[in-house]
Amino acid sequence: MRAVCVIGLGLIGGSVLRAAVRSGRPAWGATTSAEDAAAARAAGYEVLSSTERALERARERDALVVLATPLPAVGTVLREVNRHAPTTLLTDVVSVQEPMHDSVRESAPAARYAGGHPMAGTDRSGWEAGSAELFDGALWAVTIGGDTGLDAWREAALLALDCGARVVPASPAEHDAAVARVSHLPHLLAAVLASVGGDGGPLAESLAAGSFRDGTRVIATDPDLVRAMTEGNRAALLDALDDTLGRLGAARGALASTGSLNATLRSGHQARAGFYPAEPAEPVRTTVRLDAGHALRRLRELGESGARVVSLAEDTAVAEHRPVPATNDEAAPSGE
Amino acid sequence: MRAVCVIGLGLIGGSVLRAAVRSGRPAWGATTSAEDAAAARAAGYEVLSSTERALERARERDALVVLATPLPAVGTVLREVNRHAPTTLLTDVVSVQEPMHDSVRESAPAARYAGGHPMAGTDRSGWEAGSAELFDGALWAVTIGGDTGLDAWREAALLALDCGARVVPASPAEHDAAVARVSHLPHLLAAVLASVGGDGGPLAESLAAGSFRDGTRVIATDPDLVRAMTEGNRAALLDALDDTLGRLGAARGALASTGSLNATLRSGHQARAGFYPAEPAEPVRTTVRLDAGHALRRLRELGESGARVVSLAEDTAVAEHRPVPATNDEAAPSGE
Repeated sequence: MRAVCVIGLGLIGGSVLRAAVRSGRPAWGATTSAEDAAAARAAGYEVLSSTERALERARERDALVVLATPLPAVGTVLREVNRHAPTTLLTDVVSVQEPMHDSVRESAPAARYAGGHPMAGTDRSGWEAGSAELFDGALWAVTIGGDTGLDAWREAALLALDCGARVVPASPAEHDAAVARVSHLPHLLAAVLASVGGDGGPLAESLAAGSFRDGTRVIATDPDLVRAMTEGNRAALLDALDDTLGRLGAARGALASTGSLNATLRSGHQARAGFYPAEPAEPVRTTVRLDAGHALRRLRELGESGARVVSLAEDTAVAEHRPVPATNDEAAPSGE
Repeated sequence: MRAVCVIGLGLIGGSVLRAAVRSGRPAWGATTSAEDAAAARAAGYEVLSSTERALERARERDALVVLATPLPAVGTVLREVNRHAPTTLLTDVVSVQEPMHDSVRESAPAARYAGGHPMAGTDRSGWEAGSAELFDGALWAVTIGGDTGLDAWREAALLALDCGARVVPASPAEHDAAVARVSHLPHLLAAVLASVGGDGGPLAESLAAGSFRDGTRVIATDPDLVRAMTEGNRAALLDALDDTLGRLGAARGALASTGSLNATLRSGHQARAGFYPAEPAEPVRTTVRLDAGHALRRLRELGESGARVVSLAEDTAVAEHRPVPATNDEAAPSGE
């Protein structure tokens, strides 16, 4: 099994190192945090003395390098990759993918790179918050940029599968647009809701129950981590924010004029039911030949249409997706 | 122990009936839902054949009547109260309190009334969704309008305590302003977030993880129930919505111009930490004499400053509140 070298041993990087070892892979890490390094060593994991050493060993053993530092440190580490392991297999766990692909192209252009973003986390951070089980059953986007080769994508995807996740292939731009809506926007709305609730004073604090607790949960996260991911996805988040302001403004107008919130509440209820169907249908399986031309394009299209890769062999990938529901037109009597 | 007559046996009314019986009180109910009535009877609870019969028995036994119908049915039931048990002890479980006090003044003016709003619920509705334990450890607002007497307040508060809750005394207007921010606004934001996420298509659906699931959870509730409570609290919700639009617009402006969300995320993080302190301080206890003048005013002030009544005796109430933290000025060295 291919060895894994994890740079950065916080919540996500630390969990990748544990999960890689759990799957039986040789794996080591490096971190600039003395605290995370000590905790990881105490738990029996191999942590090298420097990023340089870790990358040199990755080059010697043809390992997959996983970049798991906070977004602001990415540039520095990529320049080290370019110095010590320029043609390495490379992936990352960063929540914004288009800037990652740009940075790799700029700072480590010879690396064999596919982006990665595991959709898992907790409110806490650092090595101690992680676990080998963090990705079990989670989704893990593995992104395909203009320079991504099939081998690089396959190696990143295999790591995600070995960590217990299912893989969503996507282009970096489509990934960023989607997570702006379903991850970055929820963080921002949680912050605004917490502040508007706080402005209600001690009585509001006293009466806050489940809806407030759930609606604000994610802003308990370290605000610097939330800043890095939201600000790093500026263009896509602005787009999602404008949609939100539009819908919220329309709700405000309807409440003030007619007194009705029917349209807002009913469309939100229906949209959520689409995300979490009461009785999910049995998924449909599709097999993609990896030795065919356009395999990466086919995988990207599958991912962007909602499919997840659940297993990879030498020359095939198996993807699962929900059956496409019959449209109303098709389900309705033909009228004849 | 005072008998309890519950009108309406959905999630909340059905749970009040169960919890009242659990506390050892004589209790019966009535509902216009044949389904809820059959389920309650099958579970061994007494359900009378009509609201009229239930109210007549309440008059005969000097019971506390609990109005637990959906908001739109309140006027009809209050007119029946006025016909069959005009001077009854009366409370309710409705999420908007100022309109309730207005309706009682208009339709059942001789009733001895204090408003009630238990801060508990689930995403489901109807008798089957309820339980005797629903209110254990929950907060329950018992509101004090201009016409509310101490006896009526005390009886409503005793029922809440018997159901396992702690009691927050408040004026109806202050209650409505607070729940607009911490209950009705979260429902509206959940709806808007679900719709904006849904607009992201199948890839957004695929990548939605914990932050989206939590941020949209409450809009899984029956939209008609959400409509009733949000639309019923129109003025206070408009106020909270304007604050939200202001803060969200400021965040949008900052992201577009400077690229920073620091102010929004940091103030949201701090506000949430105020709601859910990592290490809650031991609460301070205050005893209020109920036979003193202005007892109701004192209770209301306590509730609006964040205190909860945890026990009631014949002539005293014991309230708990968080200790007031030392301000920075007080905590700083005096400089001398």
